[in-house]
Amino acid sequence: MNVVYRNTPRAAAATVDGLAAFGVATVHEAQGRTGLLAPSLRPIYAGARIAGSAVTVSVAPCDNWMIHVAVEQCSPGDILVVAPTSFSDAGYFGELLGSSLQARGVRGLIIDAGVRDVRDLTAIAFPVWSKCVSAQGTVKETLGSVNVPVVCGGGLVNPGDIVIADDDGVCIVPRREAEATLAKCAAREEKEAAVRIRLKAGELGLDIYSMRERLAERGLVYRDATPDA
Amino acid sequence: MNVVYRNTPRAAAATVDGLAAFGVATVHEAQGRTGLLAPSLRPIYAGARIAGSAVTVSVAPCDNWMIHVAVEQCSPGDILVVAPTSFSDAGYFGELLGSSLQARGVRGLIIDAGVRDVRDLTAIAFPVWSKCVSAQGTVKETLGSVNVPVVCGGGLVNPGDIVIADDDGVCIVPRREAEATLAKCAAREEKEAAVRIRLKAGELGLDIYSMRERLAERGLVYRDATPDA
Amino acid sequence: MNVVYRNTPRAAAATVDGLAAFGVATVHEAQGRTGLLAPSLRPIYAGARIAGSAVTVSVAPCDNWMIHVAVEQCSPGDILVVAPTSFSDAGYFGELLGSSLQARGVRGLIIDAGVRDVRDLTAIAFPVWSKCVSAQGTVKETLGSVNVPVVCGGGLVNPGDIVIADDDGVCIVPRREAEATLAKCAAREEKEAAVRIRLKAGELGLDIYSMRERLAERGLVYRDATPDA
Amino acid sequence: MNVVYRNTPRAAAATVDGLAAFGVATVHEAQGRTGLLAPSLRPIYAGARIAGSAVTVSVAPCDNWMIHVAVEQCSPGDILVVAPTSFSDAGYFGELLGSSLQARGVRGLIIDAGVRDVRDLTAIAFPVWSKCVSAQGTVKETLGSVNVPVVCGGGLVNPGDIVIADDDGVCIVPRREAEATLAKCAAREEKEAAVRIRLKAGELGLDIYSMRERLAERGLVYRDATPDA
Amino acid sequence: MNVVYRNTPRAAAATVDGLAAFGVATVHEAQGRTGLLAPSLRPIYAGARIAGSAVTVSVAPCDNWMIHVAVEQCSPGDILVVAPTSFSDAGYFGELLGSSLQARGVRGLIIDAGVRDVRDLTAIAFPVWSKCVSAQGTVKETLGSVNVPVVCGGGLVNPGDIVIADDDGVCIVPRREAEATLAKCAAREEKEAAVRIRLKAGELGLDIYSMRERLAERGLVYRDATPDA
Amino acid sequence: MNVVYRNTPRAAAATVDGLAAFGVATVHEAQGRTGLLAPSLRPIYAGARIAGSAVTVSVAPCDNWMIHVAVEQCSPGDILVVAPTSFSDAGYFGELLGSSLQARGVRGLIIDAGVRDVRDLTAIAFPVWSKCVSAQGTVKETLGSVNVPVVCGGGLVNPGDIVIADDDGVCIVPRREAEATLAKCAAREEKEAAVRIRLKAGELGLDIYSMRERLAERGLVYRDATPDA
Repeated sequence: MNVVYRNTPRAAAATVDGLAAFGVATVHEAQGRTGLLAPSLRPIYAGARIAGSAVTVSVAPCDNWMIHVAVEQCSPGDILVVAPTSFSDAGYFGELLGSSLQARGVRGLIIDAGVRDVRDLTAIAFPVWSKCVSAQGTVKETLGSVNVPVVCGGGLVNPGDIVIADDDGVCIVPRREAEATLAKCAAREEKEAAVRIRLKAGELGLDIYSMRERLAERGLVYRDATPDA
Repeated sequence: MNVVYRNTPRAAAATVDGLAAFGVATVHEAQGRTGLLAPSLRPIYAGARIAGSAVTVSVAPCDNWMIHVAVEQCSPGDILVVAPTSFSDAGYFGELLGSSLQARGVRGLIIDAGVRDVRDLTAIAFPVWSKCVSAQGTVKETLGSVNVPVVCGGGLVNPGDIVIADDDGVCIVPRREAEATLAKCAAREEKEAAVRIRLKAGELGLDIYSMRERLAERGLVYRDATPDA
Repeated sequence: MNVVYRNTPRAAAATVDGLAAFGVATVHEAQGRTGLLAPSLRPIYAGARIAGSAVTVSVAPCDNWMIHVAVEQCSPGDILVVAPTSFSDAGYFGELLGSSLQARGVRGLIIDAGVRDVRDLTAIAFPVWSKCVSAQGTVKETLGSVNVPVVCGGGLVNPGDIVIADDDGVCIVPRREAEATLAKCAAREEKEAAVRIRLKAGELGLDIYSMRERLAERGLVYRDATPDA
Repeated sequence: MNVVYRNTPRAAAATVDGLAAFGVATVHEAQGRTGLLAPSLRPIYAGARIAGSAVTVSVAPCDNWMIHVAVEQCSPGDILVVAPTSFSDAGYFGELLGSSLQARGVRGLIIDAGVRDVRDLTAIAFPVWSKCVSAQGTVKETLGSVNVPVVCGGGLVNPGDIVIADDDGVCIVPRREAEATLAKCAAREEKEAAVRIRLKAGELGLDIYSMRERLAERGLVYRDATPDA
Repeated sequence: MNVVYRNTPRAAAATVDGLAAFGVATVHEAQGRTGLLAPSLRPIYAGARIAGSAVTVSVAPCDNWMIHVAVEQCSPGDILVVAPTSFSDAGYFGELLGSSLQARGVRGLIIDAGVRDVRDLTAIAFPVWSKCVSAQGTVKETLGSVNVPVVCGGGLVNPGDIVIADDDGVCIVPRREAEATLAKCAAREEKEAAVRIRLKAGELGLDIYSMRERLAERGLVYRDATPDA
Repeated sequence: MNVVYRNTPRAAAATVDGLAAFGVATVHEAQGRTGLLAPSLRPIYAGARIAGSAVTVSVAPCDNWMIHVAVEQCSPGDILVVAPTSFSDAGYFGELLGSSLQARGVRGLIIDAGVRDVRDLTAIAFPVWSKCVSAQGTVKETLGSVNVPVVCGGGLVNPGDIVIADDDGVCIVPRREAEATLAKCAAREEKEAAVRIRLKAGELGLDIYSMRERLAERGLVYRDATPDA
C-alpha cells in the first residue's frame, strides 16, 4: 500500500544545526563509525555543508511523481531523501523542483539516482548529493510512499532522522541519538584540536598516540633498506 | 572497408545555435525524452554549453589515428564525436589536437573513452565530454572511419546530427528534426517560466499541475505519523 | 612478515622537480607509454601538479595504522603511496594526517582507496589522488609494511620511485630511469612546441606528420556524402 | 555497542517451507514487488532453492570473527545473512564454516561480500548467494553484532525475517507478513497456471490480459514496415 | 510517437541457419570485426547457439508492456531484442513470456536488462542473453515501440537484422549483408581447419603465419633470462 | 624496448604439482594471505584446478600478437599469464591458440581481459581464468614483451612464479618461496582436517578456537531479543 505519512517528529533545530557545524567525518566517527551512506553519493558542487531532518521518498524507477507529493510534507530545515525501488540513473529532479523546495525552506536533496539542471541548481545554491548527473526524463505514472523507511546509498534512513552532508558524503543520525551524538562530536573535536597543534609542530602520531609499544608487541620489524651499490 | 565521408550535410547555423541556448535537459524533453547519451560522459570542466554538427569518428581501440584524419573534415561550428570499436579508457586526445580543432572553429569533443592534458584544454577553453581522464597513450596503426554512424555513450549518432552538451551531459538531435525540436524547446521554456514564478512564490506542484485527483484515484493514502510517546 | 624499511635511496631533488614541470602526460609518453596508474585515481581538487619520491605503504583493508608508522619514514620531497591488500573504498586518511605529513615536507598522497576531510585538505593545499572520497572510518588493529613494492591503481610502485601527479592522473618513473626520462621529456616538449605553433596556425596534423601516404597504403577511402535530396 | 541478540522470534516452519516452494520471483510479486535484494548477489551453484529465518550478522570489513559468534545463535531452518559495515569483496566464509553451519541445520548463507572453497561448498551442497567468489583471507580483530537489522544487497533485513533464495536471487519477507504473503503466493500461482496453459496453446497475452483497448487509448500506432524495394 | 512496425523484411531461413552453425566469434571476424554487442550480455545457461531475425523492442525503464505487444509481431525463427530507454537491471521477462514466445516459434531473447525464472526458462530450453538475472518486477504503464532501431549492449540493432548468440556473446549481422557474411564465414572456417591440424601437431603460429620477419623488423629482441645464481 | 626473455628458471615440477593439490584458498592462507589476484578473474568452466610456472606476456591493448610469440617460450607444465598495458575487455584468445598451447603441454591461461570460443576451449578441457568472455577481435600490430614482470588482476606476476588456479580464483607464489609455502600448506591442511571432524560433529568454532574469553575482553554483550508481545 502507498502511504504518505504527515507530521513525522523532528529533532530540535539547535541539535540539527549543531551537527551541521561538525560535518560528516566527525559525526560518523562520533557515533561509532556508523550511518555513512555509500561514497557513490557525491555533491553536485563543492563546499556545501548542511544538516536537516529527513523527509524520505520511495519512488518507482524512472518516476518522480512522489517527489511532487513529498514537497507538501516538507518544513523549513528539512532535507529530502529519495530512493528508487529498483536501480536507476535517470534524472528525477531539476531546477523547478529545487526552486519549489527552496521556497519551503528545504535545505537540500539526497538522491540515490540522477539529477539534472545542475548549473541552475548551483546558481540558486540548492545543494544535491546524487549518484550521477543525468538529464534522462522520468514519468508520473506509479505511486510510491513518503516518510517510510528507505534504503538510500546502502544505508537505512527513517523519516525524521538527521541527515548531515558535505564534501565528504552523507551521514545519517537516528533522531533519538541526535543529542548524544552532538555531545560526542564536541568531545572529539576538542581532542583533535589539541592533537592538530602538536602534529603541525612536527610531532609524530606514533608518539602522540603512544603506538610504538603495541606495534612492537605485534611484531613490527624495522630494517635499513639496501643502499645503492 | 574504412571510409572517410566528406561534405556531410549540416543543419542551419541558426538552428544549431538556438538549441545551444536551451541546453541538454530542455532539448531532451522537447524531443520526447530521447537522444540522451549515457551519464558516464562528463565534462572536463564545469560551465560550458555548446551545440554543433557532429563529425563522427569510429576509431580502433587505443588508436587515435583517425582523429587526425577527421580534423580535416571539420568546419566551423562542428563537434567531434569519437567512439572506439571496443571498450577503452585510454587517452586518445590532448591539447595539441584541441588546438588544431580550435584553429578550425570546432566547438568541442565528445569521446566515449579518455582524454588528457585537461589542465591545458581548460586553459584554452576547449570543452570535452569524456568517459574519463586518462594520460594512457595511443598508437596510429589501424584504420577506422569518419562520418559513419557510431554508437557513443550508448546512443546512436549520425554525421550531421546536432550535438548539445552542457553540465547535464550530451544530447543528440537528428538533423532533420532540428527545426521542429527547436520550436518545441521554445514552447516548453515558456511554460516552465510561468510555473517557476508560481513555485518560487510557494505554490505547490500538486496544485499547479492538478495532481491531487489522479493521486487519489490511484489510491494514495495519507496518514499521520505516530507521535512521540 | 611485516617490515618497515628505512632510508630507501631517493633520486636527486633536481631530477624529481624537473619531472614535475613536464607533467604526467609528457612523462608517460617519454618513457614509452609505461608507468601510468589507473584513471580511477582522481585528484580531490584541480590544478595541483607534484613530483616526489615514493614512500610506499601496504595496509590491511579498513586499517590505517601503518600510515601513522609511515609518516616517520618520510622526508621533505616525498609522496606517500598507500595500497590496501584487499579492495576497499573506506576513508583511510584525513586532515590530521595531512597536517602531519605537511609538517614533514611531504608533497602529497596517492591512495588506492578513499580519503576524507577533503574540504580541509583543500584548504591547507595538501593534494591527494584517491579512488574515491569516503568518510568511512578505519581501525588500527593489523600490521602492514612500509617501503615494500606495492601494486597501486593497477601499477607497480617501488619505494624511491618517482611519482608524478597532476589533473591527468598519476605516473610512476623507476628511480634508476629518472635521469634518462627527464632528458626524453625535454626533447619531446621541444618537438611539440614547434608542432603547436603550426597547428594553431591552421596546418593539419595529416601534413605535419606526413600521414597521407601511409593512410593511402593501408587503403583508406574518401567519398562524398550523399547530398540532401 | 556490539551486541549478540539471542532467541529472536522466528516464523512457523510450515510458513517458511511454503514460501520456499514458490520461489523468489513469485514471493517478490506477491508482496507487491518489494523485498528483493540486489541482483549482484548470485548463487555459487545453480538449482538450489531455500527459505529460512534470518540470523543477521554485521561484520567489520575483512573480519569474519562475528560469523563464528553467529553460528551458536543458529537453529535448524535458519539462513545466515552477513553484511560488512564497509564495501568489501574479500572471502569471509569457506567450507569449514559451511560444515559447521550444516551440522546445526542451517540451510544456507547470504553474504554481501565474497566466499571461498566454492568447490567444497558445492560438494557438501551448502548453498551460498554472494557478491563474488574470492579466496582473500580475513582477520578476527574487530567486534560486530548478531541479530541486529542489517542492509544487505541494498535491502533491509531484520533478524527473524524470512529469506527466500534461488537462481533468481534473494527476497526478504518481514516475519509478521509471512502468513499473508504465503496466501498471496498461492493465489498468484493458481492464476498463472491457467494463463500458462493458454499461452502454450498459442494465445496472445494481448488478448488474455485484454490489453488492446488500453494500448489504443494511450495512442499506440501500428504501421506496415517499408517492403524491400 | 510510439509505433509498432509489422511485417518487417527478414533474411532467408537458410542464410540465418547457416550463420548459426558458425557461431559468434567466426561471424564477428568474417564481417570485419564488427557487430558484436557488449560482453555484459551473458547467457542464462551454457551451450545454446542460435540465430534468428531480430524483432526489436524499445521499452520504458522497468516497464515490460511492449514485450507483450511484440509477441504478436514474432514469426517462427525470430529472436526478440529488448532495450530499455534508460539503464535498468530489473527483471522484464520470465517463464510465462518465454512459453508464449516458444509457442510462436521464437528462438530466444536478447535483453539489455534483467530476466527472471531462469530455472524454468532453462527447463523449457528457452535461451536468454541478458545483462543480469533479477526478479525485480516491472509495470505496464508506458508505451514504447516495436521494430524500430534500438541500441542494445552498446550496438545498433535494426529490425530484421540477423542475431547470432552463443556462449561467446551476441553478434548482429545487417540483413542485406547476411549472404555475403555467410560466404566469408565458410572461407574463414576452411582456412582455420587447416591451421588447427598443424597447431595440434605442435607447429608454431609464428611459422604458420610467417610472423618472424615482421617481428624482427619492428625490433623485437630476444634475450636469455638471468640464470639462478 | 620490447624483449622476449628465454629460458626463465622454473620451480621443481614436484613442488608445483604439490601446490596444485592444495588449491588457491589454502595456498593463499599458507603464504600469509598474499598473492591472490582480483576476484574479477573467473574460470570459463567450473571444476578445473591447476598449478604451473608463469610465462608472462605484456600485450598492447586489443593486440594479441605477443601471445603468438609467447607460445614458443612455453614448456610442459607452464601457465600463460597475459596482461594488456591498458584496460581492455576484448577477446585476445580462442580455441586455435588453446590447441597450440595444449600441444606444447601448457596447462592453462590467466588473462586480465577477454577470451572467446569458450565452448570449444571447454570441449578440449583447456582451462582459462579471464576478466570476461568476449568475441571482440584483436589485431597484430604492436609489439609487447614476454617473460617480464606484469601486473595482472591487480597483482604482480614475475616469470617463473608459480600460478595456482581453481574455482576460488588465482594465486601467485614467488618461485623462491614455493618450497616453503608447500610445507606450510601441508601443516595448515592437517590442522584443518582435525577441526573439520569436530565441526561436523556439532562442536562450535567458539570453543574449538577458544574465542569466548577474547570476545568478552573486547566487550561483546549478549542479550535476549524482545519476545513477541
